[in-house]
Amino acid sequence: MLDRSGIAQAARKIAPHIRRTPVVELEPGAFGLPCRITLKLEQLQLAGSFKPRGAFNRMLSNPIPAAGVIAASGGNHGVAVALAARRLGVPAAIFVPTIASPAKLQRIREEGAEVVVGGATYAEALAASTARAEASGALVVHAYDQPEVVLGQGTVGLELQEQAPGLERVLVAVGGGGLIGGIALAYQGTGTRIVGVEPRLAPTLHDAMAAGRPVPVAVSGIAADSLGAREAGGLAFEIARRRVERVVLVEDEAIRTAQRALWRELRIVVEPGGSAAFAALLSGAHPAAPEARVGIVLCGGNTDPGSVA
Amino acid sequence: MLDRSGIAQAARKIAPHIRRTPVVELEPGAFGLPCRITLKLEQLQLAGSFKPRGAFNRMLSNPIPAAGVIAASGGNHGVAVALAARRLGVPAAIFVPTIASPAKLQRIREEGAEVVVGGATYAEALAASTARAEASGALVVHAYDQPEVVLGQGTVGLELQEQAPGLERVLVAVGGGGLIGGIALAYQGTGTRIVGVEPRLAPTLHDAMAAGRPVPVAVSGIAADSLGAREAGGLAFEIARRRVERVVLVEDEAIRTAQRALWRELRIVVEPGGSAAFAALLSGAHPAAPEARVGIVLCGGNTDPGSVA
Repeated sequence: MLDRSGIAQAARKIAPHIRRTPVVELEPGAFGLPCRITLKLEQLQLAGSFKPRGAFNRMLSNPIPAAGVIAASGGNHGVAVALAARRLGVPAAIFVPTIASPAKLQRIREEGAEVVVGGATYAEALAASTARAEASGALVVHAYDQPEVVLGQGTVGLELQEQAPGLERVLVAVGGGGLIGGIALAYQGTGTRIVGVEPRLAPTLHDAMAAGRPVPVAVSGIAADSLGAREAGGLAFEIARRRVERVVLVEDEAIRTAQRALWRELRIVVEPGGSAAFAALLSGAHPAAPEARVGIVLCGGNTDPGSVA
Repeated sequence: MLDRSGIAQAARKIAPHIRRTPVVELEPGAFGLPCRITLKLEQLQLAGSFKPRGAFNRMLSNPIPAAGVIAASGGNHGVAVALAARRLGVPAAIFVPTIASPAKLQRIREEGAEVVVGGATYAEALAASTARAEASGALVVHAYDQPEVVLGQGTVGLELQEQAPGLERVLVAVGGGGLIGGIALAYQGTGTRIVGVEPRLAPTLHDAMAAGRPVPVAVSGIAADSLGAREAGGLAFEIARRRVERVVLVEDEAIRTAQRALWRELRIVVEPGGSAAFAALLSGAHPAAPEARVGIVLCGGNTDPGSVA
């Protein structure tokens, strides 16, 4: 069920396999902001991002054929599926675009997965992975647009509710929408409002909300490797349009500033996409009311650590 | 009182001023180790190390004269005292040795403290700071050898007990001994055993335990900037000899390996001294029994983040 109970079920299923990531509540006045900030440290998750939650839930919710699992991603999702497959003892093939970074490909290979260069773009890699899956019968693990994936990512929200009850808003970075869709479901029926954050150069959900349906967008900028989905997932969009208050856009420079601020004040390293939600707060793109209690999901840390200094 | 109740009192006193740092419990089999690991993420503390706890407790437990506070340290303690003084609105003078890193001095200055180069070594800077304090009447905040400082650092242990009850052992890096002394007091009367960890090139408490009293030691190596006290504090030594199970030594290479492993598997950046306790576990210097529940204090993150990749 694509609702809160489905997320609770996912949480029980994946609990033995993932990390329950901690939160840190910042002191009043932190970063010169008037609100009270709780950071969810999801960059400490296995594979350095929230992605294993959805991957494990998809794999644990379906019989896995002898051909194993298939995913298309040259980034965090690819690493997560490779890791989950290895830990569950099943083969994985990860289809990557030629633009994927050598470091990510190396990491995918280290997890024992087969890496297949599937074309010049993510769309081509996805098409190639789908063709292979149809031929081999392997289980496809989509990067965001499958119910089990959305429910798995939603466990971030369930944990955050338990760890920091009563937040007024939670800010979440958006790529294809799996994470914000899941988190919005997790907070269903609570008073907490969910705010999406996207780079101005990758306004996928923002433009979909404006158009009333997912539309193709041009994506670029420093966070494109993690937030650069060209079109919002259909599942995520349907959830978001009912349950996401708004989607704010942040400049690349604000993302970089947020990364540096998190390093300087907290010794936290996040990748550009992982700092986007915080960038919305720090830059004022999302102005927080004095004393408001705001949750920020730091969703990934897969970057060159030297880049945050 | 130099006991558990004194630490509880310190915790109440400093609570409005510091961060309650979170813990993360690692999945079974993490790092290929047989034990269950809980990391206390004290590198997320204000000023990037545990040091503000003791500094705030010292300042909040004494009247602060018009001359303000004085400390000797070119490292984490100096930054912490400068930060605490600024937040409490009192002047601070930090006496540093000429060998202190420019980055740390810059940070101390940014907190608004007066930086005084007090000699070639820490001992000379300490002597110069003491002379100034006698002349001006300023309150001295020692880096480790004052009761309020030990009690303040002990609040790390109090939090860890609440966050992860029932640990069999807690591993703590040792410089002058303030942190391990405080943590050992916090665990007084529980079944948890406290293990100290020092670099082989800075065996301050190790050699004191062997000699039956603090003795001067030669210090060098990659963690000397934070763990390189030349002689254990008298207070810490008295606590340690009754309440610390043992002090294990780790090689610099094991410290570097631990830093890299924490980055690779958890996207955590710690300085060399901050990873020493974990290095003892990872290198086998402290062999953990299967299923044993072990707490590790990551006590500082003030390093070039690029150094952990």
